[in-house]
Amino acid sequence: MSPLDNLMKHLSRLPGLGPRSARRMVLHLLKRREAVMLPLIEAMVKAAQDVKGCSECGNLGGTDPCEICRDNGRDRGLICVVEDVADLWALERSHAFRGLYHVLGGTLSALEGVRPADLRIEKLLERVKSNDTREIILALNATVEGQATAHYVAERLAPLNVSITRLAHGLPVGGELDYLDDGTLAAAMQARRKAG
Amino acid sequence: MSPLDNLMKHLSRLPGLGPRSARRMVLHLLKRREAVMLPLIEAMVKAAQDVKGCSECGNLGGTDPCEICRDNGRDRGLICVVEDVADLWALERSHAFRGLYHVLGGTLSALEGVRPADLRIEKLLERVKSNDTREIILALNATVEGQATAHYVAERLAPLNVSITRLAHGLPVGGELDYLDDGTLAAAMQARRKAG
Repeated sequence: MSPLDNLMKHLSRLPGLGPRSARRMVLHLLKRREAVMLPLIEAMVKAAQDVKGCSECGNLGGTDPCEICRDNGRDRGLICVVEDVADLWALERSHAFRGLYHVLGGTLSALEGVRPADLRIEKLLERVKSNDTREIILALNATVEGQATAHYVAERLAPLNVSITRLAHGLPVGGELDYLDDGTLAAAMQARRKAG
Repeated sequence: MSPLDNLMKHLSRLPGLGPRSARRMVLHLLKRREAVMLPLIEAMVKAAQDVKGCSECGNLGGTDPCEICRDNGRDRGLICVVEDVADLWALERSHAFRGLYHVLGGTLSALEGVRPADLRIEKLLERVKSNDTREIILALNATVEGQATAHYVAERLAPLNVSITRLAHGLPVGGELDYLDDGTLAAAMQARRKAG
């Protein structure tokens, strides 16, 4: 396969790109090798080498623990549990939350064979036990899998002396966190209520 | 800037990508470093190093002259003139043409300061003179700039003993080659007529 077709093949597999947009991108890159393509390659190499998962919360960043976990200005008694790093970023953009996060890394799913051990649930229990956590906010997506996972996590947290809350409904049923506008996210964060 | 933000910045500048799709892409890549990100980096490095412009026709490919210019099965008496490599690729996908190509590299534009010397017009004249070219097909976009450029190129070719044709109208007025379906492209190629 020619280097051109090979690059096109790799690009067209990325989310949101098809054969057509991959072609346009390849031409754009090859016409601007010095100005666009080489800096992009460099940025990718650097990210592939330097970006690590935070061993505490599961966020991605240049350091471990991540910037959020190391920020002493944040309320360390609050942990907001999310499915994915994208959800963490969405909440950060909304500026509605100044505590810590915990990224589960997915949702329980019998169909896709995702069991509790595949998510970062034990690590969450460990964090709650070894820190002065007073509230866990379950900010999972309002999907069937997200809510089932929230239910399971709440059950596992129940024996611990910690308040468990969920995001207020305000997020549309069936919707996903990462797609919400900042205002709705902020409103949902504000009106969170006791789980159960 | 963190390696994460830096990569996001570079990706979001690519055509068709905004901040949101760049974020999704970055997460997709970082979660699949071995399977997706490193092979993509490798493909980009290889393309940046090995893809060259064809010194004859201006096409992009792994060799110079390109595969099309080296293909002895093609009709070397026919040259199809296009604005951009993307247009050449679109015609190749339509399988409507089995001659050679000539990529101008743009259109004349007083506004953007593109003069005849900025396009590969001299090279086209040279190719026509030194080869047994019997027909030039002006397959430029049906835009004002494309048609003005076609007119100019036809004038420059007039003194040479070569038949000049244009793509049949069939392509929508104001439309661009690279956006057409293969059937329309093939029909337009079939019904091409004398210029002027």
